[in-house]
Amino acid sequence: MTAWIEQVKWNSDGLVPVITQEFESKQVLTLAWMNKDALQLTAESGHAVYWSRSRQKLWHKGEQSGHQQIIKSIRMDCDNDAILLEVIQKGGIACHTGRHHCFFNELQEGQWQAVEPVLKDPKDIYS
Amino acid sequence: MTAWIEQVKWNSDGLVPVITQEFESKQVLTLAWMNKDALQLTAESGHAVYWSRSRQKLWHKGEQSGHQQIIKSIRMDCDNDAILLEVIQKGGIACHTGRHHCFFNELQEGQWQAVEPVLKDPKDIYS
Repeated sequence: MTAWIEQVKWNSDGLVPVITQEFESKQVLTLAWMNKDALQLTAESGHAVYWSRSRQKLWHKGEQSGHQQIIKSIRMDCDNDAILLEVIQKGGIACHTGRHHCFFNELQEGQWQAVEPVLKDPKDIYS
Repeated sequence: MTAWIEQVKWNSDGLVPVITQEFESKQVLTLAWMNKDALQLTAESGHAVYWSRSRQKLWHKGEQSGHQQIIKSIRMDCDNDAILLEVIQKGGIACHTGRHHCFFNELQEGQWQAVEPVLKDPKDIYS
């Protein structure tokens, strides 16, 4: 590991939260998590690699769907405990529901409402 | 508490990570945390209230600095474990370092480099 990796404040699970933002639209696509290996691989390979907390393994984003995220920049916040990626989103779909991004539920009159269209049926993404 | 609050997947500490994005510029300002009370207060009051993990208490953003965040929208992601706020950032400064936003360290040639200017001396913000 290199010095810059050690400057990140890893939490008690060895993870850091990662915001991923689309480079051109500036839309926030996802909040995901990385461990040291994921961040190192992301920096080296130039595409986003996360840590899947549900599957407890490295998650090469887009490996199955083709919806890779090409890295434009990697940033860290003022207290070193959050990362921000700027990416180009291949296929224009970041969310496993087939939507452009994951933040499609908006609070409206005391209820969460899905306010973004499904662009592609998940069955067709992951078949 | 209302039903929509219970739909959020609170972590084992009773918290959820919150991305705050500037409404007009679409710049990502901060990653912070909320508990149920903070999210409820944010929705009711129309300005951002977080949970300070270091001080272990509610943190009415801008209470001391005047740099309040006025809520334009509250969104939740596809697996209900992250929140995205769109806000108007009063004073144009979200970061305690006096910068516009917190993600000012960019990875360049294997080093974190501060790439954003300090707009106001923190001594003048918090005095």
